[in-house]
Amino acid sequence: MTKASGIVALLTDYGLQDPYVGVMKGALLSVNPEARIVDLTHEIPPQDILEGARVLAAARGYFPDGTVFVAVVDPGVGSERGIVGVETDRQIFLAPDNGLLGFLGDSIERIVRIGESESVLKPLSRTFHGRDIFAPIAGRLSRGADLGQFGAPLQQLCTLEVSPPRRRSDGSVQGEVVAIDRFGNLITNIPAGMLPDGPGLRITLGRKVLRQLSRSYADAPKGALLALVGSTGHLEISVNQGSASKAVRSRRGDRVLVTRSRR
Amino acid sequence: MTKASGIVALLTDYGLQDPYVGVMKGALLSVNPEARIVDLTHEIPPQDILEGARVLAAARGYFPDGTVFVAVVDPGVGSERGIVGVETDRQIFLAPDNGLLGFLGDSIERIVRIGESESVLKPLSRTFHGRDIFAPIAGRLSRGADLGQFGAPLQQLCTLEVSPPRRRSDGSVQGEVVAIDRFGNLITNIPAGMLPDGPGLRITLGRKVLRQLSRSYADAPKGALLALVGSTGHLEISVNQGSASKAVRSRRGDRVLVTRSRR
Amino acid sequence: MTKASGIVALLTDYGLQDPYVGVMKGALLSVNPEARIVDLTHEIPPQDILEGARVLAAARGYFPDGTVFVAVVDPGVGSERGIVGVETDRQIFLAPDNGLLGFLGDSIERIVRIGESESVLKPLSRTFHGRDIFAPIAGRLSRGADLGQFGAPLQQLCTLEVSPPRRRSDGSVQGEVVAIDRFGNLITNIPAGMLPDGPGLRITLGRKVLRQLSRSYADAPKGALLALVGSTGHLEISVNQGSASKAVRSRRGDRVLVTRSRR
Repeated sequence: MTKASGIVALLTDYGLQDPYVGVMKGALLSVNPEARIVDLTHEIPPQDILEGARVLAAARGYFPDGTVFVAVVDPGVGSERGIVGVETDRQIFLAPDNGLLGFLGDSIERIVRIGESESVLKPLSRTFHGRDIFAPIAGRLSRGADLGQFGAPLQQLCTLEVSPPRRRSDGSVQGEVVAIDRFGNLITNIPAGMLPDGPGLRITLGRKVLRQLSRSYADAPKGALLALVGSTGHLEISVNQGSASKAVRSRRGDRVLVTRSRR
Repeated sequence: MTKASGIVALLTDYGLQDPYVGVMKGALLSVNPEARIVDLTHEIPPQDILEGARVLAAARGYFPDGTVFVAVVDPGVGSERGIVGVETDRQIFLAPDNGLLGFLGDSIERIVRIGESESVLKPLSRTFHGRDIFAPIAGRLSRGADLGQFGAPLQQLCTLEVSPPRRRSDGSVQGEVVAIDRFGNLITNIPAGMLPDGPGLRITLGRKVLRQLSRSYADAPKGALLALVGSTGHLEISVNQGSASKAVRSRRGDRVLVTRSRR
Repeated sequence: MTKASGIVALLTDYGLQDPYVGVMKGALLSVNPEARIVDLTHEIPPQDILEGARVLAAARGYFPDGTVFVAVVDPGVGSERGIVGVETDRQIFLAPDNGLLGFLGDSIERIVRIGESESVLKPLSRTFHGRDIFAPIAGRLSRGADLGQFGAPLQQLCTLEVSPPRRRSDGSVQGEVVAIDRFGNLITNIPAGMLPDGPGLRITLGRKVLRQLSRSYADAPKGALLALVGSTGHLEISVNQGSASKAVRSRRGDRVLVTRSRR
């Protein structure tokens, strides 16, 4: 059993314009006033489960052992979709069972389908389970409650349909832009391990072709387009001290092709 | 006397682009380094006292007993407007006396007009009382200081001019859109209790007419406009997995009419 | 030696749309789970070192003794630019050595160039030192580690090229708009101490001329343009209950001239 540390990390698509995140924190603190709440992010695009799953999987390793993650990207709120709690060897996760925990991989040690509980807020709304279910149960988990007391074991999580990067028969790799960050960096789903070794690398995005991997932004001249392995270990297209997103007018979903020239 | 828990919840119209919220927290922590500060929201539209009052009243019940709320939407900063502290049976509130605490209802047990105090920062600015007055006094309150030591009792708070939803002679109810959230939900000021019971319900917003209340977003087909009782207990117009705001092009202040068809 | 209080204040240009700030906090809490992290701001414009330096210098005095500030505006991340730790009599600062700490003035008591350290995360990325270097070292500093153990003393910080406000031979003062806040206030770099005393003041911004200093926003009629000394002690152009930025269509960098009329 993973021991809760009192740290609770929140990932939602609630944004910060509205009071939803604040109210959710209030509900959590009402159960555990000593919880130390950290915002992982609240800016997952509305109802974008896939992006939420990607961010959570990339971030969780940097949080302490015993962190309780509460992930709420929940287009099916109020429907019959389930809510699940998951334990890995290090941490605890609470989320709708809609694929949001789909990238935790084989570190999962226990899955529980959250059932009826006297911990939830009454009257239970049909639109704001972040406040009424997730927050109070996370509060109890962060105080050390055993996940098992909130429901019965479940064999398998709901999975996501994803199109991972593909290695084609000619050895090239095709992936896509999965996120564009504030700096205009184009983050792809191609992990460093799939990049061809050695000289002759060719990275194509729309009409742009890059012929080498830089090691850092500063490796390229100011304003120049470059490719590197970013901080999540994936191929990234960037501009040194500028915005690749502006330079290339790329969007999420744009295809990225990595080949090695014949010699 | 309400016992402070050390939790301080902030509601302001400062936004997060500027360092104002951060500086206010620094000033608060300078007085009480152990304060556990929670952001309720900082995105109240600039100087929109009414919206601040609405959000605070809807949110406060979800926070723990002993929370000190600091609410700063303060177009009259530096003028002769007063600053007030309020105690309910459960919590403590600090705000300009401009109506921001106008919806706390009859749970108020004590009102104090904050007077001269050696707690405030010197030199006192005329434009940033969040930092110079609210933060240090909230810091002291969160450490358990009695509200009474910051000023003299006051009989009544400044009130807001509001146009609550009206029940007309024909039994219909007229309200308005008071907020539009990140998901495009149109939140009205019509509480569930004012909605007519039984069949024949008719909800009109502009040219759109809805003929039933859904229980959750997922009750309606994907993309369909629907009406339901939202998480604050008020009528809400939504689109399942979409944005009612985009679908209807509605704005805050738009009229919403709820009638029951004759039979 | 400045004693750390466990409070860590973050200033970055990361924004809140992406998970970078959340991940950085996770990495910090992994080293010091008891750290009390405060967001000073994450909305420094991307790679705007000067603005970061200005905000940090104006804000730090409001934070408690023993605060560890982590400032990351770092266009040179992954290059040979250094990382520095600085102690003043009251607080500790960690930042890239690119001018970001350039306005701390003569309160600096010690400078250390951060060297190789077993505290940094491995594998060390070349693009996200906030997570891999700044967070873990800040975590150790916030637990009381001595700055000296992270590197060798350094004589001088990298400085910024700035154009401070100038007093001209005719006694007038020329400065510029350095920030525009959420309320549309135009914040200049002209400190109160450089403003001419007495009657006949004349403040020129584009085609607008203001002939007096107000003491507060409410001093002027609603909607009127006014000038006052703002909360950081600098000349500010504002509109009472409105936006000077909209009224004047000003931008950062616009020239502001303060003269005194001849009598």
